[in-house]
Amino acid sequence: MQAIVYCGPFTVALEDVPDPRIEAPNDAIVQITTTNICGSDLHMYEGRTSVEQGKVLGHENMGLVTEVGPGVQRIKVGDRVSVPFNIACGTCRNCEAGWTSFCLRTNPTEGMDGAAYGYANMGPYDGGQAEYLRVPFADFNLLELPAGQEWEREFALLSDIFPTAFHGCELADVGPGHSVAVFGAGPVGLLAAHCAFLRGADRVFVVDQEADRLALAERFGAEPIDFSAGDPVEQILEIHGGPVDRGVEAVGYQAHDATGHEHPELVLDNLVRVVRSTGAIGVIGVYMPEDPGAATEGAKEGRIGFDYGTLFSKGLRMGTGQAPVKRYNRQLRDLIVAGRATPGLLVSHELDLAEGLTAYAHFDRREDGWTKVLLHPAA
Amino acid sequence: MQAIVYCGPFTVALEDVPDPRIEAPNDAIVQITTTNICGSDLHMYEGRTSVEQGKVLGHENMGLVTEVGPGVQRIKVGDRVSVPFNIACGTCRNCEAGWTSFCLRTNPTEGMDGAAYGYANMGPYDGGQAEYLRVPFADFNLLELPAGQEWEREFALLSDIFPTAFHGCELADVGPGHSVAVFGAGPVGLLAAHCAFLRGADRVFVVDQEADRLALAERFGAEPIDFSAGDPVEQILEIHGGPVDRGVEAVGYQAHDATGHEHPELVLDNLVRVVRSTGAIGVIGVYMPEDPGAATEGAKEGRIGFDYGTLFSKGLRMGTGQAPVKRYNRQLRDLIVAGRATPGLLVSHELDLAEGLTAYAHFDRREDGWTKVLLHPAA
Amino acid sequence: MQAIVYCGPFTVALEDVPDPRIEAPNDAIVQITTTNICGSDLHMYEGRTSVEQGKVLGHENMGLVTEVGPGVQRIKVGDRVSVPFNIACGTCRNCEAGWTSFCLRTNPTEGMDGAAYGYANMGPYDGGQAEYLRVPFADFNLLELPAGQEWEREFALLSDIFPTAFHGCELADVGPGHSVAVFGAGPVGLLAAHCAFLRGADRVFVVDQEADRLALAERFGAEPIDFSAGDPVEQILEIHGGPVDRGVEAVGYQAHDATGHEHPELVLDNLVRVVRSTGAIGVIGVYMPEDPGAATEGAKEGRIGFDYGTLFSKGLRMGTGQAPVKRYNRQLRDLIVAGRATPGLLVSHELDLAEGLTAYAHFDRREDGWTKVLLHPAA
Amino acid sequence: MQAIVYCGPFTVALEDVPDPRIEAPNDAIVQITTTNICGSDLHMYEGRTSVEQGKVLGHENMGLVTEVGPGVQRIKVGDRVSVPFNIACGTCRNCEAGWTSFCLRTNPTEGMDGAAYGYANMGPYDGGQAEYLRVPFADFNLLELPAGQEWEREFALLSDIFPTAFHGCELADVGPGHSVAVFGAGPVGLLAAHCAFLRGADRVFVVDQEADRLALAERFGAEPIDFSAGDPVEQILEIHGGPVDRGVEAVGYQAHDATGHEHPELVLDNLVRVVRSTGAIGVIGVYMPEDPGAATEGAKEGRIGFDYGTLFSKGLRMGTGQAPVKRYNRQLRDLIVAGRATPGLLVSHELDLAEGLTAYAHFDRREDGWTKVLLHPAA
Repeated sequence: MQAIVYCGPFTVALEDVPDPRIEAPNDAIVQITTTNICGSDLHMYEGRTSVEQGKVLGHENMGLVTEVGPGVQRIKVGDRVSVPFNIACGTCRNCEAGWTSFCLRTNPTEGMDGAAYGYANMGPYDGGQAEYLRVPFADFNLLELPAGQEWEREFALLSDIFPTAFHGCELADVGPGHSVAVFGAGPVGLLAAHCAFLRGADRVFVVDQEADRLALAERFGAEPIDFSAGDPVEQILEIHGGPVDRGVEAVGYQAHDATGHEHPELVLDNLVRVVRSTGAIGVIGVYMPEDPGAATEGAKEGRIGFDYGTLFSKGLRMGTGQAPVKRYNRQLRDLIVAGRATPGLLVSHELDLAEGLTAYAHFDRREDGWTKVLLHPAA
Repeated sequence: MQAIVYCGPFTVALEDVPDPRIEAPNDAIVQITTTNICGSDLHMYEGRTSVEQGKVLGHENMGLVTEVGPGVQRIKVGDRVSVPFNIACGTCRNCEAGWTSFCLRTNPTEGMDGAAYGYANMGPYDGGQAEYLRVPFADFNLLELPAGQEWEREFALLSDIFPTAFHGCELADVGPGHSVAVFGAGPVGLLAAHCAFLRGADRVFVVDQEADRLALAERFGAEPIDFSAGDPVEQILEIHGGPVDRGVEAVGYQAHDATGHEHPELVLDNLVRVVRSTGAIGVIGVYMPEDPGAATEGAKEGRIGFDYGTLFSKGLRMGTGQAPVKRYNRQLRDLIVAGRATPGLLVSHELDLAEGLTAYAHFDRREDGWTKVLLHPAA
Repeated sequence: MQAIVYCGPFTVALEDVPDPRIEAPNDAIVQITTTNICGSDLHMYEGRTSVEQGKVLGHENMGLVTEVGPGVQRIKVGDRVSVPFNIACGTCRNCEAGWTSFCLRTNPTEGMDGAAYGYANMGPYDGGQAEYLRVPFADFNLLELPAGQEWEREFALLSDIFPTAFHGCELADVGPGHSVAVFGAGPVGLLAAHCAFLRGADRVFVVDQEADRLALAERFGAEPIDFSAGDPVEQILEIHGGPVDRGVEAVGYQAHDATGHEHPELVLDNLVRVVRSTGAIGVIGVYMPEDPGAATEGAKEGRIGFDYGTLFSKGLRMGTGQAPVKRYNRQLRDLIVAGRATPGLLVSHELDLAEGLTAYAHFDRREDGWTKVLLHPAA
Repeated sequence: MQAIVYCGPFTVALEDVPDPRIEAPNDAIVQITTTNICGSDLHMYEGRTSVEQGKVLGHENMGLVTEVGPGVQRIKVGDRVSVPFNIACGTCRNCEAGWTSFCLRTNPTEGMDGAAYGYANMGPYDGGQAEYLRVPFADFNLLELPAGQEWEREFALLSDIFPTAFHGCELADVGPGHSVAVFGAGPVGLLAAHCAFLRGADRVFVVDQEADRLALAERFGAEPIDFSAGDPVEQILEIHGGPVDRGVEAVGYQAHDATGHEHPELVLDNLVRVVRSTGAIGVIGVYMPEDPGAATEGAKEGRIGFDYGTLFSKGLRMGTGQAPVKRYNRQLRDLIVAGRATPGLLVSHELDLAEGLTAYAHFDRREDGWTKVLLHPAA
């Protein structure tokens, strides 16, 4: 089959690779109808990870089941399914508690809990930017979707970014009547704003400096805050008349100020300032235990010297980490079908697999209008 | 009346000061039967705060109501009461949500939510290391105790450290069957171990290097970890056979390593290492937004460069801040009366008010056996 | 001043009564700008309660503060406020836990926790269908509103039915992606549907037989189920393709079947049938410990012989009782101001106080189009 | 192999039956080391269910894994395991939410969610009162235990009654400092008292009339209430000085008064009376949708006419249903190993399989001292 393969920094290629096959009784094979390029794919693309050359990329996948192992009973050949990016065994202590993002059994990497498709350090699993994908523990991992082709664009976001955004709101304990500040108007930040409203938020502020993304934030009902126009915290405090109830971090360790300098502690500092005492912050932007390319010695070791004293004196809570997609994707699917959730609003491009190669370059340069790319291998 | 008054670094004095009086309709006056010296009083004693000279110290108070204002209906003259260290209005947004530690109305200090008796930056309220204390919003703040003198030693801990320790466990989400690591075997850390067991923990590890405190930890049923004997995280991992479910930080920004050097990020780093993925950490050890005496530029601004990358990659949650005493003191009182809670086990000294002066010096030098000092002004 | 007074079964009168005055230091006087007739006022109007003649009715009140006692600090003369129907002391055990609907101090009636204005068995408090109202514990009970007259129609519903409806969803644990069945399309049932959507429900079914109310349900985005057209449970199961996640009871003990016969267990039976195993049911429709007018001996003693065996075998949870308005009214106010909540959609009439007398009769006969009546005493 | 088989009302026999075998890739075979007789086995023994003759009884099982199917990866041959009584698929909507007691896939019986071993209406699964047991979805269902024979008596209670008792406390929301009334001092009621203390309860009252059971309640630290000596609610109100915070129902629909008459609504009525307003009740005593042997028409249809009006007026919450054992058994196991939980205190008999036959008769007659019977097939 054909697949997008990592070939070294800033290089991906469309290659012929062997078709995946059933390797264990609980495996299934999924023919990919849609697979997305994720912002976190760019970490690998840019060569800032240890991902091995030859790896098939792609952890945001959906498609049709073409084959199942003898242990698979619930999922049937022909089912249309969403594939959560987490590969979870379903039977370890973390999985049984609903923490599929920290499965104790699927990732053989020392010291890492949790596995994923086509991703650095997340286990030996190929990704789904390809025609077919092998899915371990298929009965547990796969989410069944309504047959047919309806909502394909919306459903494509169920494998990662929509549940991840919802998780950010869950970690931040966003509820009815809350005001929320979301830092970062990338796809996850935009959907965090969408999810905040789905959970009953009254006002949501989204901070970024890209005009196209801020415009999308408005389409999701949020109030755009352009940090290139001034201190975003001061802007929110003034517009809102005081601090907000909750905050979501959707930027990560590569935060830049308006002049383009990297400040890994910048967004956390702003969140600590803008959230009121007793509030909560959800962190879904990625922070790394090691970041050899960082500017300071501390940051190279994952140390982020943000304003912890103020965090404490305000009594703030903070939740972090990768989303357990299965905890949310069923309800989010139903909200899509009911017409109440419309995450697909942010999709900017739908391409075939070959076009995905140049899409990596456009997306990596954050070119205007390249918000979210969906690839259709079968097209 | 007589009161212990702050007179400058390392100097407290017993002085005659005016008796407190009813200043507002909802005030009450409490004759102090027991008032404690708290570890946080030492920050002021050492001159590391901006507390004004002449301030009566003491925020851990209990006694008998001698007078009430015309708006006080629930509490009666003669009632035996515990006085939570938080001074809360009972009607602001934070108080109505149970966050009395972040009352929006009682502290006029700019940017500070929450007030306390006899404390730097926590409002213009005298403390209770004195014969009498004025209590604002008495119906709301005071907890009624059984009449008489029984359990005085236990009840004396209801105004601060026992609820604070419980709050640490609440922030860490400690529940039945959890293993817990508590860093710091001061009074709050010891009671955090006690509270963890009250909440159903199966094993609790307490980390310190003082032999007398580690011995007390054992009396509370915990397993002592002496960090002067080796890396405490390695010790716990080995004894427990892996990481623990929950962690409690009861040390604060003045953390020292075994050689006596201050490392404000040390305890947080250890907690991030020792708590398993998906776990939670409660931080009740104090961190300050500003600490002019700190060793590094960052720490002077309250910046603590701990291993945030690993926190994120393990999906840890963290809660922080001062305890809302009222949320817990009623149930803890009942557990004392039922004989199921015995926090008084850690009380080392019961003295009169005049003896309190030298007690400050002994306690500040952390002399062996000076774990917790109770003062009885009426004695 | 003028006030609507209960004079016996089916008789209310506009009478001159003494102006209320400050009776305790924490009282305030509110000039009523809007006061509503509630469905539960009809229990008294119909003579089915023990309410005393001469009582001023009206527990859904809002207005302007004209006077405050010396203990009142937070609320100021001139403030525009919503008055929760619960009269709560703010300092008892239940109030401190946020259960203002079960205040232990404000209702002297033996065996009853919780007080209200102008209501049978809820304490000696006159209601607000009058020009002025005395509000005890004003700093605690009153919710401040934006000055002016904007959103008056929406804010008028903050004193009872909007928070009550939200409480029904809270008791039923309604969350994002849930399907919900609401029984009863009276004002509370309609707002329960509205609240379910505010909390993220994907589909809401509202069961009633009145065409005007079912039409309003549709305006709130819900799917109307007319039980006069067939078994409502079968209808929902068919439309939804199976049972729903959550149920809300907004009818109460006077449930009637399509032929007009009273069956107090009917709605609970239907909820047990229509909610899926592991689901939850919130009961805000009123059930009475004693109902002398009931058809069966059991029902006279408050016994409701619903299908408990199936409740158990499905593992359902059920929460009941009057709403603690303060827990929700602040957030609901903010959602109104942000334009995200529009409860006023169901208001059918805005009248002056004198017109309220005939409104009782129209509303009691449930005449077509008389959904919700607001009275403006100052008009 | 040999097994205890149901042969008709009041008749069980030790029969030779075929050894169970791996039937599906995710099955395992467990050699039973301990299997208990449960109070609910007596419903079948007495002929009050539709259980088929020839069924092997026994749903409280533990033992050693002797064989696994090709899909089983986590559990290994030789593992010592506890077998939860719920048979759960691990991949349906209810299982993924942790509700293994309401698995949607393992029970083919129309309208029933949830399956069990050797039980009426709970699917076509033989029980474990036998030498071997087939366990479906073994990786998901089995709980690993420390190798060896230590704690066998304690661990034997992990398959059902200890987690069921804990679930009762969870449904009743029992927490630190709560007072609790448990109705029924059978094995589940006694362990509910034990679990209430593990969760931090300050006082627990256990209501029964059997002296041996009340004596056991005291050994677990609870206060025995003998309902043959007078109204148990009045007794508790007097001893406790008022109503309790939480209630647990561990009796079920066959409740008898002190004179031996059956009153299915009796215990619920008492709970509604004894729990304070805003409290919660957990119901783990079994209620049946159909009970042909009941005394009244209503009760035959599962209708329990308890005092619902008072439940509502007190704002009580109620949770019901079979326990999802997996949600609790891991933590309870750890509490046993740590020596903090000692459920085995109530075991009265340990017998071999053949002796189990007469044990049914003794236990069914509730003979003095026959509290809990463990059978050791391998002995």
